[in-house]
Amino acid sequence: MTTKDLLLGYLKQENGNWVSGEALSTRIDVTRSAVWKQVCALRDEGYKIESSPRKGYILKSVPDLLLPGEIQQNLKTEFFGKVGIYHFAETDSTNIQAKALAAEGAPEGTLVVAESQSRGKGRKGRKWFSRSLGGIYSTIILRPKIAPNEALKIPLLTALVAVKTLLAITPIKPTIKWPNDILVNGRKLGGILTEISTEVDEVDFVIVGFGININTAEFPDDIKPIATSVLLETGRTLSRTLFVKEYLKNYEEIYGIFIKGGFDPLMNEWRTLTNIVGHMIAVDMIGKRVTGQVEKIDKEGALILWDEQGNQHRIYSGDVTYL
Amino acid sequence: MTTKDLLLGYLKQENGNWVSGEALSTRIDVTRSAVWKQVCALRDEGYKIESSPRKGYILKSVPDLLLPGEIQQNLKTEFFGKVGIYHFAETDSTNIQAKALAAEGAPEGTLVVAESQSRGKGRKGRKWFSRSLGGIYSTIILRPKIAPNEALKIPLLTALVAVKTLLAITPIKPTIKWPNDILVNGRKLGGILTEISTEVDEVDFVIVGFGININTAEFPDDIKPIATSVLLETGRTLSRTLFVKEYLKNYEEIYGIFIKGGFDPLMNEWRTLTNIVGHMIAVDMIGKRVTGQVEKIDKEGALILWDEQGNQHRIYSGDVTYL
Repeated sequence: MTTKDLLLGYLKQENGNWVSGEALSTRIDVTRSAVWKQVCALRDEGYKIESSPRKGYILKSVPDLLLPGEIQQNLKTEFFGKVGIYHFAETDSTNIQAKALAAEGAPEGTLVVAESQSRGKGRKGRKWFSRSLGGIYSTIILRPKIAPNEALKIPLLTALVAVKTLLAITPIKPTIKWPNDILVNGRKLGGILTEISTEVDEVDFVIVGFGININTAEFPDDIKPIATSVLLETGRTLSRTLFVKEYLKNYEEIYGIFIKGGFDPLMNEWRTLTNIVGHMIAVDMIGKRVTGQVEKIDKEGALILWDEQGNQHRIYSGDVTYL
Repeated sequence: MTTKDLLLGYLKQENGNWVSGEALSTRIDVTRSAVWKQVCALRDEGYKIESSPRKGYILKSVPDLLLPGEIQQNLKTEFFGKVGIYHFAETDSTNIQAKALAAEGAPEGTLVVAESQSRGKGRKGRKWFSRSLGGIYSTIILRPKIAPNEALKIPLLTALVAVKTLLAITPIKPTIKWPNDILVNGRKLGGILTEISTEVDEVDFVIVGFGININTAEFPDDIKPIATSVLLETGRTLSRTLFVKEYLKNYEEIYGIFIKGGFDPLMNEWRTLTNIVGHMIAVDMIGKRVTGQVEKIDKEGALILWDEQGNQHRIYSGDVTYL
């Protein structure tokens, strides 16, 4: 623990009471001027700390930032988020950063989070609105010892994790738009971008980008009709740090089930959260479009669709439009 | 073209005759001392260039190195090897270098070659003997607009390219040991290591490492009984540059067929070059081993194998042992 982390810990322990600079410098075993220096550093990060020559210091509020120390506090996981969190006030894209970290050997469970992204991306290189200070832009690094075919199911389990997280800590009832989107009342709340680095037999690493609009009050005009946020749906702000902690906890649990038994044990729950079965849809894939009615999602997570000519199609991923 | 490339071109044009320093400096439009400087640079690369105060310069021999200028001379491709060749006297691994180049946006058809590798790797992180000056260690960067499932067939087409190249320029009759090895008389001549970077819908890039023992006269004791080279099989050395040129030409052609029509149009030819059908084999995969008789390779390139209990197995990749 750094001096700053220790200081923050003691300030939090006081639970809104004053604590003297002398007491702090004794407990941390540094000079009073070192305490002062770290108080300034914490203020720069957005912590509201008042000081008084006679009373010492008091922590008034914690910033709504995805700071590693805040996420890791009482984090209920074995290793997700504990092995390492990289926090950016702004970055190009958390997936780009995570890919570089993974290539250098960052361990499974490493989390990259950003307050804002300059090159936030969705699937197929599309832009993903990432300027909102109310959003969460995150990427988890995974290193599953599985075949590449199995890794194609990771977006499905991630959608399950995202929905379970929302159900646990908000009154929202989200649905999964196969394969990668989280919707509420037909509007997009969150999206998943999975990238896989693999040999033919065995996966090297998977990075799972997940973006979600939490406290976004307003969207740019072009996406306003199709986007929503937790704030807009519930009328209340939600602690983004709390969301990330719950997301990591659920992810570790569900990922553990997947690694042990594949997607099978998760399929039933996943199916109840997706609303695509029975719908007439169009799916755009590389170089082709298929239109038809969805029969089911098979046990591989592939969409089974029948076109008007009576041909069956088995589709792993694509852009879905409801007709 | 650099001064050095122009100089080398003119020296080669003379086809073993002397050419004066004055004539060269006039043609290239540089000073005679600049000509001399570039002659020294070429000598450092291994070109044998004699000089005489009265007669000028004569090119006596070209080094047996995989120099970009030598590979690109009369290279019969549209863009493979023409868009860029990165040559290393020694590197960690051409796959590692190619992966970094691909992540930075290197175009399809980029080639990385090395005379020697310090961290040459085979599948699943195994070491690949890469110290022989007689070997070729190469990686091609591909950017196919295909789904990740399709990209799993790229090792198969690469094996086809390698065998066709050997058949075209050597008397060797190699076979493909499914999925990634090139054998001659039961000994390993070459191997393929494919790495894929992909989203769930569409591949970002594929790097195809290919190592082959060309003029290797002797192997370390531990692999001596199982390894061979073109030299050991034929008793003759082979120009490694010629091999790379032929490999690039065949690769571009066969890759073009694959991109247009998938592996189907290549399957018949590929099948005639593999000798696995009918054999009793064991296949080691992640966490399990399957033993049985090979019925066929299906049209996806997967191995269809029946075990002794009468169960059918469909296997995409693994370590094969003949029983």
